[in-house]
Amino acid sequence: METGSMSLWFLLLFSLQVFVISSAHFVPIRFPTPITQFQAEKKVSVSSPTGLYKEKFFTQLLDHFNFNPQSYQTFQQRYLINDTFWGGPEKNAPIFLYTGNEGDIEWFAQNTGFMFDNAPRFKALLVFIEHRFYGESMPFGGDKDVAYSNASTLGYLSSTQALADYATLVTDLKNNLSATDSPVVAFGGSYGGMLAAWFRLKYPHVAIGALASSAPILGFVNLTSPYSFTRIITKDFRSESENCYQVIKASWQQIEDMANQKGGLEKLRKSFKICKNYISGGALLSWLSTAWVYTAMTDYPTPSNFLNPMPAYPVKQMCKAIDDPVTGNDTLAKLSGAASVYYNYTGTATCFDLNDTSDPHGLGGWSWQACTEMILPTGGSDEESIFPASNWNYSQRPSSCLGVEPRPDWIPTEFGGHNIKRVLKRFGSNIIFFNGLRDPWSGGGVVSDISKSIVTIVAEKGAHHVDLRFATSEDPTWLRQVRQREVTIIAQWLSEY
Amino acid sequence: METGSMSLWFLLLFSLQVFVISSAHFVPIRFPTPITQFQAEKKVSVSSPTGLYKEKFFTQLLDHFNFNPQSYQTFQQRYLINDTFWGGPEKNAPIFLYTGNEGDIEWFAQNTGFMFDNAPRFKALLVFIEHRFYGESMPFGGDKDVAYSNASTLGYLSSTQALADYATLVTDLKNNLSATDSPVVAFGGSYGGMLAAWFRLKYPHVAIGALASSAPILGFVNLTSPYSFTRIITKDFRSESENCYQVIKASWQQIEDMANQKGGLEKLRKSFKICKNYISGGALLSWLSTAWVYTAMTDYPTPSNFLNPMPAYPVKQMCKAIDDPVTGNDTLAKLSGAASVYYNYTGTATCFDLNDTSDPHGLGGWSWQACTEMILPTGGSDEESIFPASNWNYSQRPSSCLGVEPRPDWIPTEFGGHNIKRVLKRFGSNIIFFNGLRDPWSGGGVVSDISKSIVTIVAEKGAHHVDLRFATSEDPTWLRQVRQREVTIIAQWLSEY
Repeated sequence: METGSMSLWFLLLFSLQVFVISSAHFVPIRFPTPITQFQAEKKVSVSSPTGLYKEKFFTQLLDHFNFNPQSYQTFQQRYLINDTFWGGPEKNAPIFLYTGNEGDIEWFAQNTGFMFDNAPRFKALLVFIEHRFYGESMPFGGDKDVAYSNASTLGYLSSTQALADYATLVTDLKNNLSATDSPVVAFGGSYGGMLAAWFRLKYPHVAIGALASSAPILGFVNLTSPYSFTRIITKDFRSESENCYQVIKASWQQIEDMANQKGGLEKLRKSFKICKNYISGGALLSWLSTAWVYTAMTDYPTPSNFLNPMPAYPVKQMCKAIDDPVTGNDTLAKLSGAASVYYNYTGTATCFDLNDTSDPHGLGGWSWQACTEMILPTGGSDEESIFPASNWNYSQRPSSCLGVEPRPDWIPTEFGGHNIKRVLKRFGSNIIFFNGLRDPWSGGGVVSDISKSIVTIVAEKGAHHVDLRFATSEDPTWLRQVRQREVTIIAQWLSEY
Repeated sequence: METGSMSLWFLLLFSLQVFVISSAHFVPIRFPTPITQFQAEKKVSVSSPTGLYKEKFFTQLLDHFNFNPQSYQTFQQRYLINDTFWGGPEKNAPIFLYTGNEGDIEWFAQNTGFMFDNAPRFKALLVFIEHRFYGESMPFGGDKDVAYSNASTLGYLSSTQALADYATLVTDLKNNLSATDSPVVAFGGSYGGMLAAWFRLKYPHVAIGALASSAPILGFVNLTSPYSFTRIITKDFRSESENCYQVIKASWQQIEDMANQKGGLEKLRKSFKICKNYISGGALLSWLSTAWVYTAMTDYPTPSNFLNPMPAYPVKQMCKAIDDPVTGNDTLAKLSGAASVYYNYTGTATCFDLNDTSDPHGLGGWSWQACTEMILPTGGSDEESIFPASNWNYSQRPSSCLGVEPRPDWIPTEFGGHNIKRVLKRFGSNIIFFNGLRDPWSGGGVVSDISKSIVTIVAEKGAHHVDLRFATSEDPTWLRQVRQREVTIIAQWLSEY
């Protein structure tokens, strides 16, 4: 079963045979989280003088590409701004723009320290725009229940509308700041990185360049192997220890067998500290796969708190738990210890609620996008995979998204992807594609240079948009070098402008 | 009064003081035509073996950028195809694509001989796609009355939707022809030229280059002087003879004075051979300005039949009529003779019907586009103008288009325009902007080279997309040279591909 079929609205038939890996989402959506909710760092107060940013709202058009009366409805789009370091319009000091992705923009801003770290040196104005239908940027009166209620409202949630939002907001903001000549550089990670790259390609008159971090713009149907995602995760774990890989690989069948035994589910529940409302073996398998997938994605070299609080090199920590001689042959204890690295690093959770559907980062709309247009096949697993082998087949995807058809060919038609090197060799400029090869999404990324000014930075040890995180004193040399190279290239764009 | 306010639906109060120049339309829409209707060359039969093309239809999506249920409605989009000269997919022989503009695609195909003339040398497949809401490509069941009935239906008529139509159709066609690697070159004139340039900029993965002929992509509010349009027309007439310019310039007041005299309107009616249902002096002034504007636009060096049948160098012919010593001081006879060059070159018209609102080329939708997004200010006339002086002011434009607001900032936001040289100097490639400086639209065109591969060809003696017309044995040397240069550049693109 293909992972993209996971959505808030489509009934999923979990089973031990057909289980779902959560990999079609960039970040977990409604996967069980510990009952002690881990939020991103506490929101910075709007009026706080020590705050990272100020919160503002822009009256945005509902539909840019259609002139019928309902298109003229508006909504309040949130953006965050920090002008502490800005050199001002007189000096054409730059504007660093984060092209928000599928969640609360404060969460992304707080996890994009690279922009804050480099604002002083570039005298840059920082702007983070929230993506429509996420966080607080909710059309239809700001009421999420209305906005998410059906295809007639969610229909306005699309990548092209989001890009047009950014162009409109930035153009208006620059006019208001009398800064029409200030160069804009776009930044984004993950889906936000795709948007940053596409923004440069589609709106070169608005952004002079883009740093697209971990942006799988080639991750669409017939562009990248649907097996690349799980292959990379497999490689990540195997690189830590062959035993770690073997234990996880064997665990799916063991758990399935145990779940089918009398009393097995209860034994599993206790082993993994699942709360008492636990239902099925399938949910447990999904819960475990979530831990492996997202830990591989965020296998950062320093402690972090992006999806969940985690130690440095969390995949290594997971494998350490699995390889721990203390647990001997107790596979369940090993897996439970590994899962705790992702779900309970702070040690505050008493049990895990597999039925929890809370959405602390406001990510709910991604299921709609993943169903309609952002169809990134990630569900294939070959025989070598750390996950159970499964063929990926487009026909297994949902045929309907709240009643409308998925459009798998749309993104490649609108944004390209096929033969990207040939297409962009003599077209476009000023894009950096960063990819960390430990990140499963790097399989759909651009990993070889396209032209002199459409370049790639590939970090063998890097994870999902690690370059965009706040610098720390513990950062390894390779990460410092990645960021230094990014800074140098951006400085070059600005000097040429 | 601004000319863009002319539309099929907005009541116009013609008066002698406030009269309307028809220049906001690329081609005449509902301006009076002679009672002997002059159609474009007879339509080529679909099944004719000697035909220029075959007619086909593609099932097109109503709204590409929105996923609500009504967006999934489809319509039959017409395209014309000629594979006589195509080298086929094996040899990656190119596809020449005409990005249809605001009218019947057969009419444009028949006036874009350049593509037919050069198909054999390039072994090119020719494809002409009709723009949605024009000709026979009518959404809402193919029923024009329904499609044009209100803003809820016409809302889907926009340039961005049209470009997405072209990308979708071409991608599908190439798949069907097993020609995914065949390079596509876009061609277009006037609004079609704008679409061709924008298509290359927005869909570089679909078109490897574009010949954008007489494309006023800089003709929008705050980008080009709204006086440039009438200045160029003035220059055209003045270049033929100072007397010609003076006679026309003085005529507006003379006609107004006469219309206000008792029996004056009847005298005017007879002088200009207006049919008996003639009503007002304002309509006559509009009729005359239409003749001057469109003749300047189509001041071709050979006889043509694009808007109307006309002789070679029709502006010269008009001035010849005005300067004719036989008519002595009879200004009305002079003007009537000049107007006949445009309205009655074949001599078959017996009287002219100022109330005729027929639309033989299927152009009716342009009024909607000119009101909502394609807001090209052309209505300003300075003291030197051949037209009465008039200040251009945006606030005089209509504030409503069938109930929805015009969006004058949208096109520059979506497609750019400001500082185009700086923006495209290091971005994009493979565009030719052709402009003839006798064409009033050249005022909004790109007339100086942007980069090594975004180049301009400027013909001092050229008129509106004259380069795209069928070659004739009478073509002047400069025109042959323009086309030769275009062919050389296109061949270069294809060799680099």
